[in-house]
Amino acid sequence: MSPPPQATGPRPAALNRPAASNRPPPSPVPQEEGGDPSLLPLFRAVDKNGTGQLSEHELSAALVNGDWTAFDPQTVRMMIRMFDSDRSGTIGFNEFCGLWSFLASWRTLFDRFDVDRSGNISLDEFSNALIAFRYRLSPGFVELLFHTYDKRGEGVMSFDLFVQACISLKRMTDVFKKYDDDRDGYITLGFEDFLVEILKQLR
Amino acid sequence: MSPPPQATGPRPAALNRPAASNRPPPSPVPQEEGGDPSLLPLFRAVDKNGTGQLSEHELSAALVNGDWTAFDPQTVRMMIRMFDSDRSGTIGFNEFCGLWSFLASWRTLFDRFDVDRSGNISLDEFSNALIAFRYRLSPGFVELLFHTYDKRGEGVMSFDLFVQACISLKRMTDVFKKYDDDRDGYITLGFEDFLVEILKQLR
Repeated sequence: MSPPPQATGPRPAALNRPAASNRPPPSPVPQEEGGDPSLLPLFRAVDKNGTGQLSEHELSAALVNGDWTAFDPQTVRMMIRMFDSDRSGTIGFNEFCGLWSFLASWRTLFDRFDVDRSGNISLDEFSNALIAFRYRLSPGFVELLFHTYDKRGEGVMSFDLFVQACISLKRMTDVFKKYDDDRDGYITLGFEDFLVEILKQLR
Repeated sequence: MSPPPQATGPRPAALNRPAASNRPPPSPVPQEEGGDPSLLPLFRAVDKNGTGQLSEHELSAALVNGDWTAFDPQTVRMMIRMFDSDRSGTIGFNEFCGLWSFLASWRTLFDRFDVDRSGNISLDEFSNALIAFRYRLSPGFVELLFHTYDKRGEGVMSFDLFVQACISLKRMTDVFKKYDDDRDGYITLGFEDFLVEILKQLR
């Protein structure tokens, strides 16, 4: 039996709380009008066909890991879903600014947890990141999570997959918390609720 | 509140039971030695580099829908996982024979439920298929399921996505049944169990 997730309970304000900088970037909020003008040249370079909107294809070509490998397609789709505030299926300039700053925050975190500076996150480094994010998970589960998102079977996690794993874990945890009203670490689900929640994670 | 899935309860032997031919093909069992020799020429044609094993890439090139569009990559990976009995990550000849006959059974079902012969499954046709498969699901859920697997946003389901949707639904239902010991249509899950079951569906 696994302990309830620490993140679901009420939190003491200070003691044992990691520095704010060690915590994942907050979920996106709609960007103000305008965005960051310094990103305009980059946006224009990525917007190959000059429509003012980045397609999944254009964004895929622009998002690379530290070793210049392309992002996993699922991470690209996840970013679009998170930042496409007008639900157009594409990323406009303001949306791009939000996405870019979100990935920059993740990059800082990734570098912090990549203690041996290998450019990848090992299982040990991943475990430490999840502890810093205040998850309480068994070593067996952390290993399963790691291998699920080590999609290229490399035994280490590149930046794109680290971000994907952490965001997915956050989304799954949020669903659990939604049902765990009494915070006892157990939830009861009917058949269709169970299916619906899984389908949402597949998207 | 949704009713418990009909498929989980004990079944009366005869009345109201659809003809066996209307039900999805059973899950794969390891193939006997030898396989079907008539499939050898096809297997050799697909095995481009002549290793005697089909990679995901080779299989992707060979599996097409009725309109010759390529299979969704997730369906190809699902087929490999289901039929790769020796866990080599590739599909040998015997495994290929199982996979091929499984897809042929699905093709027959697909054609049966494609009542208007459009070459695709509409939402109505999908609903009818799920009823024939003895699922009891709300129209809202069936629509969500349909749109989740209509990955190309075409408003209809091609063969590959129909197979993927039906197999995923079966897998999710099997997980639910595993936890629903008393068959009341509700399950209780701890945090890690919940996460583990979702991760398994993502694979």
